[in-house]
Formats: sequence, structure tokens, C-alpha cells
Amino acid sequence: MSSKQKVCILGSGNWGSAIAKIIGSNAARLDSFDSCVNMWVYEEMIEGKKLTEIINTTHENVKYLPGKKLPENVVAVPDAAEAAKDADILVFVVPHQFIPKLCSSLEGFIKPSATALSLIKGFDVAEGGGIALISQIIKKHLKIEVSVLMGANLANEIADEKFSETTIGCKDKQIGQILKDVIQTDYFRVSVVDDVEAVEACGALKNIVAVGAGFVDGLKLGDNTKAAIIRIGLMEMIKFVEKFYSHARLSTFLESCGVADLITTCYGGRNRKVSEAYVTSGKSIEELEKEMLNGQKLQGPITAAEVNFMLKNKDMENDFPLFTTVHKICIGELKPSDLIEQMKLNTNMSDKLNLDKCNLKTEQADGE
Amino acid sequence: MSSKQKVCILGSGNWGSAIAKIIGSNAARLDSFDSCVNMWVYEEMIEGKKLTEIINTTHENVKYLPGKKLPENVVAVPDAAEAAKDADILVFVVPHQFIPKLCSSLEGFIKPSATALSLIKGFDVAEGGGIALISQIIKKHLKIEVSVLMGANLANEIADEKFSETTIGCKDKQIGQILKDVIQTDYFRVSVVDDVEAVEACGALKNIVAVGAGFVDGLKLGDNTKAAIIRIGLMEMIKFVEKFYSHARLSTFLESCGVADLITTCYGGRNRKVSEAYVTSGKSIEELEKEMLNGQKLQGPITAAEVNFMLKNKDMENDFPLFTTVHKICIGELKPSDLIEQMKLNTNMSDKLNLDKCNLKTEQADGE
Repeated sequence: MSSKQKVCILGSGNWGSAIAKIIGSNAARLDSFDSCVNMWVYEEMIEGKKLTEIINTTHENVKYLPGKKLPENVVAVPDAAEAAKDADILVFVVPHQFIPKLCSSLEGFIKPSATALSLIKGFDVAEGGGIALISQIIKKHLKIEVSVLMGANLANEIADEKFSETTIGCKDKQIGQILKDVIQTDYFRVSVVDDVEAVEACGALKNIVAVGAGFVDGLKLGDNTKAAIIRIGLMEMIKFVEKFYSHARLSTFLESCGVADLITTCYGGRNRKVSEAYVTSGKSIEELEKEMLNGQKLQGPITAAEVNFMLKNKDMENDFPLFTTVHKICIGELKPSDLIEQMKLNTNMSDKLNLDKCNLKTEQADGE
Repeated sequence: MSSKQKVCILGSGNWGSAIAKIIGSNAARLDSFDSCVNMWVYEEMIEGKKLTEIINTTHENVKYLPGKKLPENVVAVPDAAEAAKDADILVFVVPHQFIPKLCSSLEGFIKPSATALSLIKGFDVAEGGGIALISQIIKKHLKIEVSVLMGANLANEIADEKFSETTIGCKDKQIGQILKDVIQTDYFRVSVVDDVEAVEACGALKNIVAVGAGFVDGLKLGDNTKAAIIRIGLMEMIKFVEKFYSHARLSTFLESCGVADLITTCYGGRNRKVSEAYVTSGKSIEELEKEMLNGQKLQGPITAAEVNFMLKNKDMENDFPLFTTVHKICIGELKPSDLIEQMKLNTNMSDKLNLDKCNLKTEQADGE
């Protein structure tokens, strides 16, 4: 990597703008970064004006992060390849369905030495069904290393500079430090771990658990049951990562990307909210998506279906009773109240999820 | 141990009565237990009648668990030594300040082969200050092994037979299985682990974290900050157990006694509630205890003070910034808003709490 790192942010929604506020400020402040930070903005017209022009004159993303000033060194660029071409660090922060098209538009235009950081939560569908990690899709298209950033990170609260934590998953120590330098502030604390897949999988799997937590809320089963479902969900997240990805560490699930993001998602968050309404209203998930999410798809049921495809293929549905039951409830095969009946049936749950039998590492290989 | 295990429950409050409902039912159902279960009831007069007589005729603890029937094989006994004298398993479930006196009254009257199970959360003050585990106090008095049961277990929800989980910490495998047999039902799932001190410490330390979570709620800092405080609290719980007790396992903190109990305590629970009111009302903890708890002492600030005594003695206050700051806020040395300032100062928090540097075991010694 060259001496002055140039950063490009690809995406300018709520989260993209909040992280641009941080990255812009750090890049201006730190000698090791080029102070000019490009931000690719999907061009749209706001009251007759181009959004890029509004951002570059008022330094405010009036559509997606109104009321917050972006640093003046953050420059909105309407062409992704143009925005990214000189960058050493590409920060991906777009809705995950846009990733393949965005990556295609970048192919051949980026520096071969560049590195990527994905802030995108959720899986994509793999060829033939099942799960593809967003980082894998970016890597496949652009042939560069992809790190990820996940955590209990509601964008508006970070834009308000309220204290929070986040986790960067990065295989390379030196790059991890550079990414930490450009992301961390006194109110946004970064922890770097090296098991990228575990960090990224947490960001998607938690939404399945949140659907289960929402069912518990809808059924008014109380605090004990909700805590049990969240805990069992965390155990299945750990087990899933252990089964399907290598090099995971148990301690990573105790970082912000793990337990902290899971908690906020299961208490706040729209997966919980819509799933609660599914129980109390008797309406279908599709109806509720229209009413409550303006027609947007709810992430949890989609992720549950993708995960179930993999589990079914490997004859492992019974090893993940919570993930499996949540999916079956979402597709109408089981009732919400069956969630608890299925948990009761799993009399040897703790044996099935026995962490002591997991192969997760707890020591750094190099003795750190 | 003899062939038919006889159980005695020492305590008959809300939690004691809820667990009596379970133990009574299991003892009646299972051949390996004596169906008669004694329950020591601190005698009091309810509308001119003795509470023990009410329980033994109506099979309802009208004062502490009204509306729920106890199994008829649960017999209320007003004298503790009389209740306990033939028991193989002594279940302790009284407010923790009563433990020394209760144990003294049992000395010389119990079977030497008996084993104990403590359901009591919280520390006691050690001689010279600092912390004594309740299990250690029982053991010291009665010279018998003491196991513990902790988890996300609100008594009323368990009495309502709502699904929940719990954790038994027991050093002996065979005894652990017997305890599990008499406690577990289809709606109350038991996991047995062997690091007793870790299980017990979780049940006390979580209250310090809940005070911090309450401050965050009072300061209206939002979901990210609350999740961060809970996570940092969990890390300090782990680190505290690793420093002060031996044989702890990281996976134990993922059991109901760890993360699940912590979550419910930080979202529900009176430590959270009073601490929130401390911020919003400007009143002292003592005033709020009078107003909100009918004069009862709040556990979190007491535990924070006991823990701080130990940390200060060992010059380790800076290694536990959350525990230390919560204590200093409780005694008026810092303001609630200083909680976040202290967290920001800990720029190397994740290094300080690096789990990979912890000496926690993750494998069973015998390869299980």
C-alpha cells in the first residue's frame, strides 16, 4: 500500500453517510490518509437538484442523514468507477441486493492493490441456493481482500456521536490497524479480530434470532423465555459458524458483532417488531411488510430460508431447532406457539449445543 | 447417597415456592426421590393463621406465591433443623442476609452425607471486607459440598410454567445429574456445568452491569450505547471470574446464568429501574430505595462496593473501568454522565479485556 491511503465510500444511505462523517473527519486529521474522501452517491433528484450537488455544496445528505454536516473533504461522486479508481480502501455500504451490479461496474477500474471493507449485513443467495457471504461476492468480482465491519451500530445514533462499539474482521494485521485508524473515534470504539466469516455471519444470523424473539414478544411469554430464545439463538449462531466456516474463535461472539448486535436486534429492530405483529395481528409476513415496511422485504425470514436450504441439504435441521422452527413458522408450516413446543422437545439441547465439543479456537495461533 | 433421595427446601418466598412446585412434582414422579419434600417456612401469622398451617391445608403459599397450588407432598415445617434433619439434598433459597443464621441453626442436625444446592444470588461480605460467595458460607458452616443454580429465572414466570432455562454449577458429575433430575421439567431446562464459582459470581456481578445499563437508560443514550455497556459488563464479569476464581470456562458465560440472566436484568429488573430513576429524578439511591423498594436495599450498588473493595486492594480498579465507574457514581464521586467519559478514556479496552489472553479453559479436562 502507498504512503497516503485514499479512501472511497461506496454508498450514501443512512449508514453510509454516518460512516462518511467519521471517515472524512479521520482522513482529514491523520497524516497517513489522503484527506480527500470520495463517496459514491447513487444520483437522484431532490426538489429539482442533483443529490451529489446538494451534498457537495451544503455538505449534508438531506435525504438520508438530514440535519448532520458531513466533513467538507467528503466529495460526492455520481459515478462509482470514477469515485473508486484511485482508492486504496473501498468501503462498501449499499443495500446488499445492489452489490453484484456495483461490483460489475467497478471491475477493471480499481487499483489491484486496493483492499475492501464491507459494512453490509445479510447473506446473498449462492449459486444453486444457500448462502453466499457479501464479502465473498465482492472478492470474487474484484479479486481483492475483503474485511468486514459489524456491530450494534444504529446509524442515527452514531451520527449523533453517542458512544458505541464495533468489530472489524480482517485477516491481515497491518490492514486491520489501518482500517481501525480510519474508523475509530473516541465515541466509536473498534475491535479488530481475524475471523472475518464469523463476524460477517453474525450480522446476518442475528436476524433469524430476532424473528424468534419477536414471536416470544407477540405470545407475551415474558422475560425468561425471551432470554432463553436469545441465548439458544446465540448458541446456534456459534454452532453454525463452527460447522460452515473455518478459523472461528468463541471470543468473537462476545465482541460487538456478536452478543451486542444480537441484543439490540432482539429488543429494538424491525425483525422483532414485524414478527411480534405477525403473532398479534394474524396477518401474513407479506401483508405486514406492505403495512409496516412500505413494501420492503424483512431480512430475518429471507435469511432463515437461505440457512434452512443449507441445513436441509446437509440433513442438519434437527441440530438447529431454533433456526429451523423460525423458518417453518415464517413459511406457515408451524404456528408461532410451536416455537416453544419445539424447544421443549429438545431435551438434550445443551448437549447438542455443547460448546466444549465445538472446535472453536480460543488462543491466537501466534500466541498473542 | 442413599437409594431414595430426600429433598428439603430451606426458604419459602416467591422463588422458594416456585421451585417447591417443581421439586415437589418431580419428587412425586421419580422413583429415585422420596416423595415427601419438606419446606422450611419462616413462621408468620396471616389473618390470625400460621403460614405453615395454611400451606399444609390449602397447598398454597398465600403470601409469597398466591394463586398457585403447591404439590401436596410438599410439607411446610416451621423449624429449619427439623425440616432438614433427614434430607440428602438441601436447597437454600432465602434472602442472602439470613444465610449465616440459618446455617447456624442447622449445624449438627443435618446428615453428614447431605449435599446442598444454593439458589441465592448475590455476594456476602467477607471477613475484613470484599466478597464471600454464599456457597462458601454454607460450606464453611455445614462442611458439605455446595452446588448452585442461577439463570434468567423470574419466579412468577416459572410458577406460570413459561419456558425458561437455568444453569446448575456442580463439581461432582453424579450429584449434578441427581440435581438436574429433581429440578428439570419440560418448561424449565437445566444445563449442568462444573465451574461453580463462575456460575455463582455471574448471579451477583450482573447487578453491577444492570446499574450501568440503568444509567444509560436514564441518560437516554440509545440502543448502541446500552448494548456496548452490557457487552463491556459481560467482559468484566468474565475477567473478574478469571482473576479471582479458578477453573472457569468461557462457555459458562454463554449459559443461562451468564448472558441470558445479564440480558433480562439489564432490560427488566429493579437495579436497572432504580438506576434510571437516579439519573432522571436527581434523588439519592437511598431516597429511591425508600420510594421504589419500600426501603429494601438495592443489590447492585452494594455488590459494586464489595467488588470495588477487592479491586482497590489489589490495585486493579483501572482493569475494570465499568465496575469501578458504576461504584463511583453510586457513592456520588462521579456523575452518571461520567460513565461514558470513562469508557471513552479506555482507548485500549479491547486489549485490556482481550479474551485470548485469558486463561479460561474451553475443553473439559476429561475430553468431554
